Amino acid sequence: MGHVSLVGAGPGDPGLLTRTAIARLRAADFVLYDALVDDRTLRYARRAQRFYVGKRAGRHAMTQTAIQALMIRSARRGRRVVRLKGGDPFVFGRGGEETLALQRAGIPYDVVPGISSALAAPASAGIPVTHRGVASAFLVVSGHEDEALASAIAQLQPNGVTVVVLMGLGRLAAIACLLIDRGWSRGTPAAVIVDASRPEQQVWRGTLDRLATDAVAMDAAGPGTIVIGDVAAIGLREAGIGNVEVGMQTRIPHSRF
Amino acid sequence: MGHVSLVGAGPGDPGLLTRTAIARLRAADFVLYDALVDDRTLRYARRAQRFYVGKRAGRHAMTQTAIQALMIRSARRGRRVVRLKGGDPFVFGRGGEETLALQRAGIPYDVVPGISSALAAPASAGIPVTHRGVASAFLVVSGHEDEALASAIAQLQPNGVTVVVLMGLGRLAAIACLLIDRGWSRGTPAAVIVDASRPEQQVWRGTLDRLATDAVAMDAAGPGTIVIGDVAAIGLREAGIGNVEVGMQTRIPHSRF
Repeated sequence: MGHVSLVGAGPGDPGLLTRTAIARLRAADFVLYDALVDDRTLRYARRAQRFYVGKRAGRHAMTQTAIQALMIRSARRGRRVVRLKGGDPFVFGRGGEETLALQRAGIPYDVVPGISSALAAPASAGIPVTHRGVASAFLVVSGHEDEALASAIAQLQPNGVTVVVLMGLGRLAAIACLLIDRGWSRGTPAAVIVDASRPEQQVWRGTLDRLATDAVAMDAAGPGTIVIGDVAAIGLREAGIGNVEVGMQTRIPHSRF
Repeated sequence: MGHVSLVGAGPGDPGLLTRTAIARLRAADFVLYDALVDDRTLRYARRAQRFYVGKRAGRHAMTQTAIQALMIRSARRGRRVVRLKGGDPFVFGRGGEETLALQRAGIPYDVVPGISSALAAPASAGIPVTHRGVASAFLVVSGHEDEALASAIAQLQPNGVTVVVLMGLGRLAAIACLLIDRGWSRGTPAAVIVDASRPEQQVWRGTLDRLATDAVAMDAAGPGTIVIGDVAAIGLREAGIGNVEVGMQTRIPHSRF
C-alpha cells in the first residue's frame, strides 16, 4: 500500500514551502498539482511523475471525483502520491473532501499545511490582517461563488472586521458593490494583491468606492487576494512603495522571501 | 547598517518552518523570540545570541516598546536580527506595530510569513476550516481580550461561518457562553486543540454546550486553538482518532509533519 500526502504549496515563492512539504515532494512517485502551483516548486519532485489536474481555459482538466479516484488507485499500486495545492490544502482547497475520500478508501494519508495567501498576500503588501486598535479579527471568504460570498458578507456588521477575499479577482467591482450595498463605508480602505510573493507581484491600493467604480486593471492570470478594512491603509511606505498614490497600481520588486 | 527579519515560526513542529525562515535563522546574529517558539526551532540559530522576550509567569519579560527599541539598536550596530514569533507575525503577533517602528527608524527589514495556528491547529485534528456545503468562510479572532472577542462575535449572525479563536484556552466556558448568549445553537460542534503539531498535541471534541458546562481539562501550558462550527464535526476518524467519543479529550500520537 502506498500513501497520499495533501501538501500546501504556499502562495508561490518556493522559499515559503515548509521543510516537510519539500521532503514529501522529494520522496514522491506521483504528483497531482493545481493551476496555482509554481514551476519552481514542482522542481523538487524530480523523480516523480507529475500530473496537472487544475483548470485549462476556465474548465477543470479533471473532475474532483476523478482526482480522488486517481489518488486512491495510485496509492493502492504502492505509489507515494503528493496532492499539491496552492496555499493551504484546507482553505478552499477541497482538502476536506479529499481526506474523507481517502479515509473511506482506507488509504494512509497525511496533511501538510501551507502558507495561505489569505495571510501571505496581505503581508507581502505590508498589510497585517490584525492590528492593535484597528482590527482584532478577520474573515476569510471565497469570491468565486456569488452565493457563498453574499451569505458570508450578510453575516457581518459593516466595517467590523478585516475581510479577506480569495479568488475574487474577476469580480472586483461586484464584490465592492456588495459591501457598499450592505452598508460598508465607501471610503473603507481596500487593497488587491496579485501574484503575491512572486517576482511579478502587483499591488493596488485604494478604497471600496474606487474598487467599485474604477477599472482596476490587474493581470487576471495570476491568483489574487482582496483585503478590505482599515488595515489595508497600513504599510504603504513599509512595503517599499513609499510614493504610491492611493488608487494607483504598482509593481513591487519582490525579493523579500 | 544591519537588518531585521520578522519571521513566523509556525505552530511548533520545526517541519512546518519555511525554507526562508530557516535561512534567516541560520544567518542571524541576534534572535528575539516569544513564548510559543519551540526549542527545536531555535536550534537553527546556532551562531546567534538568543534573547527571550515572551511572558514569564503571566507577565511580559519586556514591553513592546522595549522590544522594538532593542531591535532597532541592534540593527544600527550592524547585526542581523531575527524577531521570531509563534505562528504568523501578522496574525495577533503585533508584527504591524513592529514594522511601523522599523520603518519610522529607517531600518531595512522583511517579513517572512509563517504557518498560522488558526489553520494548522484545526488541520492537525483533521478539521478543514472551509468545506463544501458546510462552511464557505471563517472568522479568526483572539480570545485574549474580552472586548475584542465580544465585539467580533457581535458582528456575526449565529452559526453562519466557522469561528477560530486563538489564545482563548483560559476562557473556554466564557467563550462558549458568549456564543450561546448571542444565539448560537447549543449543539454547534466545537473542538479544542492544544500544542498543535507537537508530540504532546491534545484534541477535545464536543459541542458548544459541553464546552460551556463541562470542565474541559486541557493542559493550559501549551498554545490552544478553538474551532466552532459544523466543520468541527468533520474528520474525527480521519485524524486517526477513530474511536474517540464526542466530548472526550484525546492525546493524538502526532508524527504527521
